[in-house]
Amino acid sequence: MNKHGGYFGEEKNKVIDFSVNVNPLGPPKKLVEFLRENLECIVRYPEIDGSTSKRILSEYLDIKIDEIILGNGATEIIYLFARALKPEKVLIVEPTFTEYRRAFELVGSKIYSFIAQEKDNFQIEIDSFIKEIHRINPDVIVICNPNNPTGTFTDKERIQPVLKEIANTETILFTDESFIDFVDNDSYISLINEFPIFILRSMTKFFAIPGLRLGYGIGNENLISKLNNIKEPWTLNALALQAVPILLQDEFYKKEVIQWYRAEKEFLYNELKKVSFIDVLESRGNFFLCRLNGCNSMDIKKSLLKKNIYIRTCEDFCNLGDRFIRIAVRSHQDNITLIEVLKKL
Amino acid sequence: MNKHGGYFGEEKNKVIDFSVNVNPLGPPKKLVEFLRENLECIVRYPEIDGSTSKRILSEYLDIKIDEIILGNGATEIIYLFARALKPEKVLIVEPTFTEYRRAFELVGSKIYSFIAQEKDNFQIEIDSFIKEIHRINPDVIVICNPNNPTGTFTDKERIQPVLKEIANTETILFTDESFIDFVDNDSYISLINEFPIFILRSMTKFFAIPGLRLGYGIGNENLISKLNNIKEPWTLNALALQAVPILLQDEFYKKEVIQWYRAEKEFLYNELKKVSFIDVLESRGNFFLCRLNGCNSMDIKKSLLKKNIYIRTCEDFCNLGDRFIRIAVRSHQDNITLIEVLKKL
Repeated sequence: MNKHGGYFGEEKNKVIDFSVNVNPLGPPKKLVEFLRENLECIVRYPEIDGSTSKRILSEYLDIKIDEIILGNGATEIIYLFARALKPEKVLIVEPTFTEYRRAFELVGSKIYSFIAQEKDNFQIEIDSFIKEIHRINPDVIVICNPNNPTGTFTDKERIQPVLKEIANTETILFTDESFIDFVDNDSYISLINEFPIFILRSMTKFFAIPGLRLGYGIGNENLISKLNNIKEPWTLNALALQAVPILLQDEFYKKEVIQWYRAEKEFLYNELKKVSFIDVLESRGNFFLCRLNGCNSMDIKKSLLKKNIYIRTCEDFCNLGDRFIRIAVRSHQDNITLIEVLKKL
Repeated sequence: MNKHGGYFGEEKNKVIDFSVNVNPLGPPKKLVEFLRENLECIVRYPEIDGSTSKRILSEYLDIKIDEIILGNGATEIIYLFARALKPEKVLIVEPTFTEYRRAFELVGSKIYSFIAQEKDNFQIEIDSFIKEIHRINPDVIVICNPNNPTGTFTDKERIQPVLKEIANTETILFTDESFIDFVDNDSYISLINEFPIFILRSMTKFFAIPGLRLGYGIGNENLISKLNNIKEPWTLNALALQAVPILLQDEFYKKEVIQWYRAEKEFLYNELKKVSFIDVLESRGNFFLCRLNGCNSMDIKKSLLKKNIYIRTCEDFCNLGDRFIRIAVRSHQDNITLIEVLKKL
């Protein structure tokens, strides 16, 4: 099982955790108040498949209720998708989140990697990618978009040739949009009935509620029904289900968060650029992949932890080894602290 | 997917729900206060596999930490067990909870039923059972104990011949003890290193927190490691994990609940006995299976719903058809209301 997922050491309350890609502004106040007042909902079973919340979400996204499936975090959906489709061949665009590989390996899929190159700043080189798709003829292609940990984003225009390539085949494009809300990125949602696309979403990163576990998947009705056929009952807890309408209604929070990120990302990016041993990569997510020059990630991690700062090393990501770290955008004060410490290392 | 799991109709707040087997006294006050004060834990990822809570639980149960696995409700563990073992042949003691069958069918197991007979008040007839085990040679035997929906309990002494039968074989006894805490029943936990037993537990029924999702499995280290190898990360939400120590410490609540149930179960049992068209069966759980005489369960359900009372029909349980209903023990006032309405039907 994954060894990352945040700092859980003894100094938990002292350590500033740059390793988790969660909105540092905290959850909407309305949500916390609502949950506090509605805690009693835990005395009832949650709806088996969260129908009420699913309906509200489908209306918000302007898709059919049968084009959506809720998950106990996005993670449930990754594993459920793998089990529902049991694809023979899966092509994963690497380096990326490691749970895709594990989920598909568990159902016996043969995994192929398309490695986005460092020299291309980890952007997918579309021509080579299409050649690989043609050569391998995978049942599923996995793209995390924006990609964790590289921060790259493949927009609708750039992905078009890939979509055309798979349009009349059995290949499904599995796109993880868990980090899409932080930046004004254009989702593939509008394409689900035109192309064989499955979209994974998380509500816990943007709304800062990873402890609540809330994600969903979107696809055409036929695909979603395959997942529903094997879905386990009662996987979403009652509080997560109750949170859905509260979160969707909070337009003010959403605008505020996006605006704040725009400024703070720029600040952190520019400051990281000034750190002598770091090459910071541009990012369309809420985190930065940083190449280290003349030092290795484990040493940096240790040194920072002595200063109560925790970062994500990237040794488990394909091809990144010990030369990269990932840094989430945190509060302005936390970011300043990080930069000050980095500069003194 | 299961169609039951409580009443979710429009009159949700008016209807008294006798269909869910959850403690009607509500969760420990200490827990609700604690969660209200610690709601902020939702801004952090839960521990990937809930190690801290698992350690506390293992100390409480006086077993090793590697003999336990936490689940997003008991349901996660049922499906995880099935996937980890992918047993060829599974023998299920019926009538019982339907999720076992679904979980094992999803991994391709061949399902055999041992049907506990109505004439035996649904007690397992041990001699015939052993003959069946011998004949089928199943990889897994499933017993729900106390059994949902029959309320029967097979104690350690009665199960001994079965355990001896499977002692030196590859057969594993999967025992669901989700309802064991309500009555002074003797768990099989002490037997896990002597016999090939896996035990499933729920913390949400007794502690009245089904909306929070919290269950666990117990078995020898080898068996638990098989489940851990394929367990998905972050399945338990942060509030459920935080609840563990609070619930375990609350000895007062536990004593009070057991004492209250003893009296209230007796009251409801005696009152149900007086209803002319009902034969109520004795129960070692917190619910009663009732045989209907001269009427069918759907009609009774409809009539009761007109009076804002919801019950569990049993058409999906093996062999019970439309002649049985299941009634949970609710608050004294609710039970009186039910009895009054039943008597007037």
